[in-house]
Amino acid sequence: MVGGFTRDTMVEITNFIVKAIDSISDDEKNHMIDELLEAYKRGARVLVMGAGRSGLVGKSFAMRLLHLGYHVYVLGETIVPRIREGDLVIAISGSGRTRLIVTAAEAAKIVGAKIIALTTYPDSPLGRLADIIVRIPGRTKIAKEEDYFTRQILGIHEPLAPLGTLFEDTTMLFLDGVTVELMKKLGKTEEDLRNEHANIEL
Amino acid sequence: MVGGFTRDTMVEITNFIVKAIDSISDDEKNHMIDELLEAYKRGARVLVMGAGRSGLVGKSFAMRLLHLGYHVYVLGETIVPRIREGDLVIAISGSGRTRLIVTAAEAAKIVGAKIIALTTYPDSPLGRLADIIVRIPGRTKIAKEEDYFTRQILGIHEPLAPLGTLFEDTTMLFLDGVTVELMKKLGKTEEDLRNEHANIEL
Amino acid sequence: MVGGFTRDTMVEITNFIVKAIDSISDDEKNHMIDELLEAYKRGARVLVMGAGRSGLVGKSFAMRLLHLGYHVYVLGETIVPRIREGDLVIAISGSGRTRLIVTAAEAAKIVGAKIIALTTYPDSPLGRLADIIVRIPGRTKIAKEEDYFTRQILGIHEPLAPLGTLFEDTTMLFLDGVTVELMKKLGKTEEDLRNEHANIEL
Amino acid sequence: MVGGFTRDTMVEITNFIVKAIDSISDDEKNHMIDELLEAYKRGARVLVMGAGRSGLVGKSFAMRLLHLGYHVYVLGETIVPRIREGDLVIAISGSGRTRLIVTAAEAAKIVGAKIIALTTYPDSPLGRLADIIVRIPGRTKIAKEEDYFTRQILGIHEPLAPLGTLFEDTTMLFLDGVTVELMKKLGKTEEDLRNEHANIEL
Repeated sequence: MVGGFTRDTMVEITNFIVKAIDSISDDEKNHMIDELLEAYKRGARVLVMGAGRSGLVGKSFAMRLLHLGYHVYVLGETIVPRIREGDLVIAISGSGRTRLIVTAAEAAKIVGAKIIALTTYPDSPLGRLADIIVRIPGRTKIAKEEDYFTRQILGIHEPLAPLGTLFEDTTMLFLDGVTVELMKKLGKTEEDLRNEHANIEL
Repeated sequence: MVGGFTRDTMVEITNFIVKAIDSISDDEKNHMIDELLEAYKRGARVLVMGAGRSGLVGKSFAMRLLHLGYHVYVLGETIVPRIREGDLVIAISGSGRTRLIVTAAEAAKIVGAKIIALTTYPDSPLGRLADIIVRIPGRTKIAKEEDYFTRQILGIHEPLAPLGTLFEDTTMLFLDGVTVELMKKLGKTEEDLRNEHANIEL
Repeated sequence: MVGGFTRDTMVEITNFIVKAIDSISDDEKNHMIDELLEAYKRGARVLVMGAGRSGLVGKSFAMRLLHLGYHVYVLGETIVPRIREGDLVIAISGSGRTRLIVTAAEAAKIVGAKIIALTTYPDSPLGRLADIIVRIPGRTKIAKEEDYFTRQILGIHEPLAPLGTLFEDTTMLFLDGVTVELMKKLGKTEEDLRNEHANIEL
Repeated sequence: MVGGFTRDTMVEITNFIVKAIDSISDDEKNHMIDELLEAYKRGARVLVMGAGRSGLVGKSFAMRLLHLGYHVYVLGETIVPRIREGDLVIAISGSGRTRLIVTAAEAAKIVGAKIIALTTYPDSPLGRLADIIVRIPGRTKIAKEEDYFTRQILGIHEPLAPLGTLFEDTTMLFLDGVTVELMKKLGKTEEDLRNEHANIEL
């Protein structure tokens, strides 16, 4: 039974995510799912973007989209094709203010891609660019003060988990949930995913 | 309140992690913490490695080690220096059989680095190479059958979360816990971490 | 007019490459071109792999394959699908002994992919795994002594360019040449390439 | 003796680079070398940035800076620390207009880092942000028309090498030259570089 601050932090994060499940909007999630199902049907390209640890959460989801059969790419990697009208961008930023992500989302907007933003701040520069927003609670790496949305979950305690951890972990599990919902709606089994999983990988 | 399979999966994963907190060994965690504290003191290099989504979890932890002041590197990135005796390797593989990770860990062993393995299978090729093992429950992307360790947590139900998801998410939260424990033991505040956080990032 | 060691080195490298043009086999190049044309026709996946600076040269070529319309991937990146029989692997290693590349090529061999190796040493572990070898002169980062093939070009002088530089730069220009030959044979114009070039990129 | 368009292109590129050696300014190169020597002495951080193939050329140089003993990082990779006043940014963009690179350079400017730009267009947004410019001839991936600087080298012929190839390859060899000049001025041997070269790498 793991103890110490490692235990306390794991308990804190799981408690936070359990409450986040109740505060994330089902409508917002359904919009995201619908867009992803549409993108699948028309063979659209999906470009995932995020900076730092949010970017890594995005990459984790991008791998699952690949396993589901999507034409998916990650900003900053070698293999990124042209994005066109009708393509889909998934941008992850707790604050919605990460400079390079906002710049990239603006570029995506100009070429006519649809933008799904996962952010704590719908009223941020990224949020205002987005066609679809899924609001994920969490503290951002920028501000020490949480918005009311996140504060309701955290209560008055200062969390142990530093910087954007709560946002990143909540987004990770949310997107793992979205993966399963897409599996069910696309009629894909775990075996189908395994068949697209890299067999030579680092 | 998010619903559908997204909700069910998020509930499943958090339940799994809550139980995993009780099944991860405190001794193993403490060994890992001690090695990391020692590595910090002697300014050792830390090389993090993992394939696929496990690799992304490793990168998330590597970022936190950077914020804590470590000389940390990630296998497969541009900037990876020579690893020497006394350096530390953190290898993440649910199955402990990921070919390139085992090969890289063997190379690390030869040069005299100490290896911490996070794996579900202590008796795997990676586990046998490791100096320190932290056993993390989870299903692997390879086998549909879980070992007894994981089965105790999962019960008889087939999980919704596909492939290595449970291992990856549990490892993510465990390493976020380790981060906080290192913060406390190194006397670092959130402000200290913010001061090393990238200000130009993608 | 740039001077100093920068000039001397640039002159040395261009002289080396000019001579390398005469020592690279046209047959070997043609085999590589034919395999790539075949792969294009059958929509095969192409996986590019190399370590360190050779890996970066591989990524540069992979971008061009993307612009040419290939389904191309790079080992170590997020988006790498399953490789199957009939897929193509392009492995770059001057010495032909880079451990992780040899391991990855072995894995590719097992699943039935065809392997094109760019190496100075046809008789290396990588060379022996390959279906097609294109021999590129150069010194390797491992050995100070060059083989006879490279020594004929270098003469008796110790080159200024350190480690694998000559191999890497020669391979870079060779693959840029292969790109143009593929363009011509696939009937693609610069405009076609531009139309697939990333418009949102880092 | 390699033939076909592969040969023609390799000949074209080496001819271009040979002429570029005469058109790159020695003063500009010396300013760059001086800044890099200063950065070495004060242990400054060096952040290398470029998009697409220019970014890969930047990564190749970043590896050599690592081998030379620099604290060097690459934009877009996992391990990127805070950049501060007195740190050095090396930005590579043929057109000087690559959106994310200009945005990142602006951010670097704000925090007080010094910016070295390698570009064909000194009067571009990136050029205007830079403290030091090294002008490298080449066509950009954006414009079909070359500036007078590049046209003098190319003559009236349309080059075979598509998009930014001439810029990228010239920059690659220029930076390999800078590497040797830094080696000499820092008193480093090939053996010193080898001692910092990754021994576990992909």
